[in-house]
Amino acid sequence: MTLARVVYLSGGVGGARLAHGLSRALDPERLTMIVNTGDDFTHWGLSISPDLDTVMYALADLGDVARGWGLATESFATLSMVQQYGGETWFQLGDRDLGTHLMRSQWLREGTSLTDITSKLCHGLGVRAKLLPMSDERCETMIDTDDGTLSFQHWLVRARAVPDVRRIWFRGRARPTQAVLRAIEAADVVIVGPSNPYVSIDPILALPGVYERVRAKPVFAVSPIVHGQAVKGPLVRMLQTLSRAEATPAAIAAHYGDLLHGLVVEAGDEASVRTLPVLGTATVMHTREHSLTLARAVLELCESRLVQP
Amino acid sequence: MTLARVVYLSGGVGGARLAHGLSRALDPERLTMIVNTGDDFTHWGLSISPDLDTVMYALADLGDVARGWGLATESFATLSMVQQYGGETWFQLGDRDLGTHLMRSQWLREGTSLTDITSKLCHGLGVRAKLLPMSDERCETMIDTDDGTLSFQHWLVRARAVPDVRRIWFRGRARPTQAVLRAIEAADVVIVGPSNPYVSIDPILALPGVYERVRAKPVFAVSPIVHGQAVKGPLVRMLQTLSRAEATPAAIAAHYGDLLHGLVVEAGDEASVRTLPVLGTATVMHTREHSLTLARAVLELCESRLVQP
Repeated sequence: MTLARVVYLSGGVGGARLAHGLSRALDPERLTMIVNTGDDFTHWGLSISPDLDTVMYALADLGDVARGWGLATESFATLSMVQQYGGETWFQLGDRDLGTHLMRSQWLREGTSLTDITSKLCHGLGVRAKLLPMSDERCETMIDTDDGTLSFQHWLVRARAVPDVRRIWFRGRARPTQAVLRAIEAADVVIVGPSNPYVSIDPILALPGVYERVRAKPVFAVSPIVHGQAVKGPLVRMLQTLSRAEATPAAIAAHYGDLLHGLVVEAGDEASVRTLPVLGTATVMHTREHSLTLARAVLELCESRLVQP
Repeated sequence: MTLARVVYLSGGVGGARLAHGLSRALDPERLTMIVNTGDDFTHWGLSISPDLDTVMYALADLGDVARGWGLATESFATLSMVQQYGGETWFQLGDRDLGTHLMRSQWLREGTSLTDITSKLCHGLGVRAKLLPMSDERCETMIDTDDGTLSFQHWLVRARAVPDVRRIWFRGRARPTQAVLRAIEAADVVIVGPSNPYVSIDPILALPGVYERVRAKPVFAVSPIVHGQAVKGPLVRMLQTLSRAEATPAAIAAHYGDLLHGLVVEAGDEASVRTLPVLGTATVMHTREHSLTLARAVLELCESRLVQP
């Protein structure tokens, strides 16, 4: 069979790389990407959506592939002036990136929804894939640590992810958008990107009505754990402290539980997962070609599992 | 005698150049600069004070002397992204300049006064001269034209000063700050920069209590008209349409009326002014040395007139 409609759930860095591959492997009208906005925050008075931007820049081929965030061609002249004035510089906003935040902030003030703004920004960058924020309402991922409770960017970037995480919770009563719910309902399959389950995917699944709708679909994920390591970010420590689990694809499978119909893992990691159909392949994406190859492998797994009983 | 306390009234470009000279000719504690904020406006959601910034950048030796506004070392990466998104690009905000507007906007939102913000910004740039916005409250210079009423930047920059000016007025009920009133009261002399009288100096004089206090002092101005031309900006047309006057230093003298005790004009322009003591000298400032030389000449005129009966 052919997958007519694919929904992709994504956080930032790892998710953005696979997003790029999927956007090349599928016609734009067949693919809807739903992106975490739990990391969204206000900085320098601007509304910043780190995961949305990371995915958008990746899709526009403007992303910094090596660094994983921000724009490849970027300068930091504004930041240097802000530093001169004694302003906050722990979150490194680039000059071009600022253009995105300025426009988003202005449109939000004018009453445009984040969904429509994301569409306008994508249009400006020539991105044809359908990119949806998980919600038009504010939902903050909060990190309880021994040093107190921090919002996600304050914990990850300002505190450099040093304080141990005791609990993660989502502040606010954000609802998913109708576009998100309809996309999931219409999907033949839901693909979960190689993102951090706790802080990138769970915020999406925690929105009222999302988990049940996703659960009604065949769901396939790509493991963000590769040979015992996270490609990027604080996932290994989160698995240890929050789930008392070792950093294996099996821990990812356990985290999502019976939501998953299959897991794509790095070749060599297959043996750790015994509860699910597993595909071992190259999952670390250093180039656009890696992303496309992995996207095709994931889609093939989906298709092969869907035709089987 | 020596002038113990000098107050300088200034708009943007021409005023900023003389400000630089005065700041070198006088100890910082002897000089207070009061700057027009009638041009202030909001753009990209940021609070922008063009004249304050032009003077501040000039004092910090960061200004673009040739262009007259903005920073000498500047890039426009944010602007290029905003353009890509279809945002407003008629006001060319540079990347470093944006740092100033972002900080000012953030501090204003936090409740800091524009006076204190200006002081913090100056401190960040190493500017020791005392720079005061004329008011902490919003006062918009409005331009009535045949095409309707425009705020100043919309008329000057967006409409490229094309629509003929019928009337200029100041919207709002802004009061001068106590710092402004006290500085004028304490001044031995008030120097009016070579700025546009209608849109740079009149907004300051129009604030309640300012004109009377300035009038109680010896006031000396530098003509912004040189050999029948304005060094920069739309002053010639304003003199013609608003005052039915030819563009001469005499028209400047007539505009300020009996406020002035003396006028500094370009050498060769002395004859046009018959109502006032006049000093002819080089008033066009292309370099920092020109600014210093003119500042010294202005101060000498003030001193020489003050010792005379």
